[in-house]
Amino acid sequence: MEWIFLGTGAGVPSLDRNTSSTALRFTETGGNIWLFDCGEGTQHQILESPVRLSRVDRIFITHLHGDHIFGLPGVLGSRSFHGVTTPLTLYGPKGLTEFVEINLRTSGTHLRYPLMIEEVEDGKVFDCAGFLVTVGKLEHGLPSYGYRIEEPDSPGELLVEKLRREGVPSGPHFGKLKRGEEVVLADGRRLRGKDYLGPIKRGRRVAFLGDTRPVERGVELAQDVDCLVHEGSFADGCEDHAHRYFHSTSRQAAEVARGAGAKRLILNHISSRYRTTDIEELMAQACEVFPYVDVAFDHSMFSVERPV
Amino acid sequence: MEWIFLGTGAGVPSLDRNTSSTALRFTETGGNIWLFDCGEGTQHQILESPVRLSRVDRIFITHLHGDHIFGLPGVLGSRSFHGVTTPLTLYGPKGLTEFVEINLRTSGTHLRYPLMIEEVEDGKVFDCAGFLVTVGKLEHGLPSYGYRIEEPDSPGELLVEKLRREGVPSGPHFGKLKRGEEVVLADGRRLRGKDYLGPIKRGRRVAFLGDTRPVERGVELAQDVDCLVHEGSFADGCEDHAHRYFHSTSRQAAEVARGAGAKRLILNHISSRYRTTDIEELMAQACEVFPYVDVAFDHSMFSVERPV
Ligand SMILES: [Zn+2]
Ligand SMILES: [Zn+2]
Repeated sequence: MEWIFLGTGAGVPSLDRNTSSTALRFTETGGNIWLFDCGEGTQHQILESPVRLSRVDRIFITHLHGDHIFGLPGVLGSRSFHGVTTPLTLYGPKGLTEFVEINLRTSGTHLRYPLMIEEVEDGKVFDCAGFLVTVGKLEHGLPSYGYRIEEPDSPGELLVEKLRREGVPSGPHFGKLKRGEEVVLADGRRLRGKDYLGPIKRGRRVAFLGDTRPVERGVELAQDVDCLVHEGSFADGCEDHAHRYFHSTSRQAAEVARGAGAKRLILNHISSRYRTTDIEELMAQACEVFPYVDVAFDHSMFSVERPV
Repeated sequence: MEWIFLGTGAGVPSLDRNTSSTALRFTETGGNIWLFDCGEGTQHQILESPVRLSRVDRIFITHLHGDHIFGLPGVLGSRSFHGVTTPLTLYGPKGLTEFVEINLRTSGTHLRYPLMIEEVEDGKVFDCAGFLVTVGKLEHGLPSYGYRIEEPDSPGELLVEKLRREGVPSGPHFGKLKRGEEVVLADGRRLRGKDYLGPIKRGRRVAFLGDTRPVERGVELAQDVDCLVHEGSFADGCEDHAHRYFHSTSRQAAEVARGAGAKRLILNHISSRYRTTDIEELMAQACEVFPYVDVAFDHSMFSVERPV
């Protein structure tokens, strides 16, 4: 899977960074895409990215601030305009349904595909196409959520070489062994699946957190993840400002990553006060706390590989 | 005054043309700006234009299709975010108030400036900072309006040379003459203002029409205007398609301009099916009917001079 950052700014668009949106593309399983947040101009950013609206089948909204949702009506409408008929599900805070309905109704937008909207709350856990999604409430003035996504573990591979060495003929019992079952061969030998399977492959775990002060719930959501996306709106020295406006500094984001035992941190939602040269500073401050840090720019892509 | 085109596409944004928005800048009177329509990404286009949100004091919405309004919440919010405190007035069809209120409320957007919203209907005539604005209903499936804007005529200039030739001493009676009043000089001469004024300078008249089939009401709104902005979504051969979707071809737009005795036509709202090379064709077809045609591109600017 890979993150494709479409908008990495905060509050308002600038010439450098658009308002918030990030795609998670499931490269190994057909290339379907989940979006996280949908600021104004997300569909414009998509035009210049590998993302296709036809592949987007879920959109997760972290919170209802304008820089995270004002692009949603346009994405919904254009997905239909381009002839997509496959279903789409939205997840987000209470109020999302009314927002979407009024926008579609006012604009006379009739979608050609089924649209489902699920309003979430703290502690909700649900299955999304085999992935386990956990919702946690953060601290941002208005309800803001983080999403933890867990890929299921995969059973180990069938040790075909070992079976061949032991003279086991191939046949339907290979499938049973692969599923971990017990089989009895024609010559009377009894084989247990678990003896012929490689190690279980742990699924990937990622967390995408909405705007927030650094909070314990964020640490919980990011526990042992392979990749955490956390806002790092501000630099050292802006702690008071960040606290007042319910945001985090890059160092605070790194403290969350360290506390959670995350493997990697991607800083997102960067204030437009920081230009390219200041970004190294934001990064350096985070790296003093946690070594595996990247800063996302618009159109940055980061792949998340299966842990070995 | 001048038109600054921010988005000249139709329906959805493309890499060439954004969704609808056009600015009218009053260069001679302080540089305030009126916007016509506000598709998604209008604030992004503004970032790359001479338009400043602080100078925008009125926004006219022609109709509520998404490609004309989905950028409005962002423009309203960013105008406040950037610290503007001067009032803003919106004009548009019934439904605009609810749309704006839900978007601002859902996103927790608190504006630092007074916002007025006036819903318009066919035949409404009102004064905007001395300009007369007339609203006319067009034909577009859902209510779509055109706006005719008339600058007041200016009185002729005081003919100072003539007064000097006739030996009239300067003094406060110059002001009275300039206002067209009658004065009696110290030597008993009686002068009438109208004898010492140059010709009246006619104000400019422009019309900006929303999406529409070609209709008589459009011709009325554009009567004798110096500049008509009309959609020309499609080319010859697409008349049935245009009719079905309540749009016009470029030739039909030219027929409206000719019927109205307009001085000039600017074609706007061009379907994304036409690339740069096809644009010459759209233009040529219009020019067969009416000779003074331009096609707007994103960031095109056209000045409208006072008639001589
Ligand atoms: Zn926020
Ligand atoms: Zn329309």
